[in-house]
Amino acid sequence: MSTEPLTAERILEATEEVLRRYGPAKATVVDVARVLGVSHGSVYRHFRTKAALREAVTKRWLSPTEAALARVISDSGREPGAAKLRAWLLTLFDAKRLKAGDDPELFATFCALSQESSDVVDAHLTELTRQLTRIIEEGVREGEFAAPDPREAAGAVFAATARFHDPAYAPEWRKSTIDAEFDAVAALLLRGLRA
Amino acid sequence: MSTEPLTAERILEATEEVLRRYGPAKATVVDVARVLGVSHGSVYRHFRTKAALREAVTKRWLSPTEAALARVISDSGREPGAAKLRAWLLTLFDAKRLKAGDDPELFATFCALSQESSDVVDAHLTELTRQLTRIIEEGVREGEFAAPDPREAAGAVFAATARFHDPAYAPEWRKSTIDAEFDAVAALLLRGLRA
Repeated sequence: MSTEPLTAERILEATEEVLRRYGPAKATVVDVARVLGVSHGSVYRHFRTKAALREAVTKRWLSPTEAALARVISDSGREPGAAKLRAWLLTLFDAKRLKAGDDPELFATFCALSQESSDVVDAHLTELTRQLTRIIEEGVREGEFAAPDPREAAGAVFAATARFHDPAYAPEWRKSTIDAEFDAVAALLLRGLRA
Repeated sequence: MSTEPLTAERILEATEEVLRRYGPAKATVVDVARVLGVSHGSVYRHFRTKAALREAVTKRWLSPTEAALARVISDSGREPGAAKLRAWLLTLFDAKRLKAGDDPELFATFCALSQESSDVVDAHLTELTRQLTRIIEEGVREGEFAAPDPREAAGAVFAATARFHDPAYAPEWRKSTIDAEFDAVAALLLRGLRA
């Protein structure tokens, strides 16, 4: 038995560990409780259902990427417009491929979890599109971009760069040509946004 | 027993029928021979291995799309540049979503087959990129597009429109917003190519 207080954060860490060990199909709340040395009832006091626990761990897995991208936006040393948009797209690509390359099994686990936590994934995609919209709006204000509908343009940029953030393309991210492909797509899109 | 001569084309038709009926995991050459009322040796005289037969049927499935796209290029009534590029991208999207929507099971079957026939799929993707390169080169000659490296630009356009041709996105193609998404991405890319 652990003497540390049982926090939501400790439960989420243990859940990630259990998912890594048993995979998403076999991992149970009882496994999580065992890792923590507590009863499964104690886990359920923090997360009312297994689905809620899995959603929370998916959200926790996605949130560092959102935070890293938000820092690109708030970085006052970065020029608005094309430089910021390109940095944001590259930060997203780097975050995704780092996760995919670092621990491919855990990455596959979270891809599977994402399929069942569609609300969490929708919220993540909404946040990313909101950030992209802000960058484009800022570029329009600075006179660098022309976009009659910045939100629509953000959606188009996000869709057009799917190859560099959609987990379905993870196997492609190891190709030696992928950086050149990213550069070509980013250059074309930035040219398309230019005022 | 059929009295028609056993042609490669008849074998391919029967193979498609067998794949549709049993799925790619279970379909065998013996099943194909049975549908045709011939021995499996007769099938092997046309296709030396099961893999060769499956590759040929995959190629046959992809080739009408290549032909439809080639017609967009050779259509002398169509203006070169943006109009032709947009028509080509839309023809590709329409061909893919028609196949996906018409017969989703057969579509899934061919997606599975494509995974094992990577040479056939690579040849298909090479042909599509070759066609796109031609359209961009023509647009550059006409002074409508600016692209220092038309082949690289073709690769970027193809990658940026994956959402509208990669079978991995087939579930998205039924969304009511998908045509607006296509329009936004196509407009952004055409703007990016404009001289």
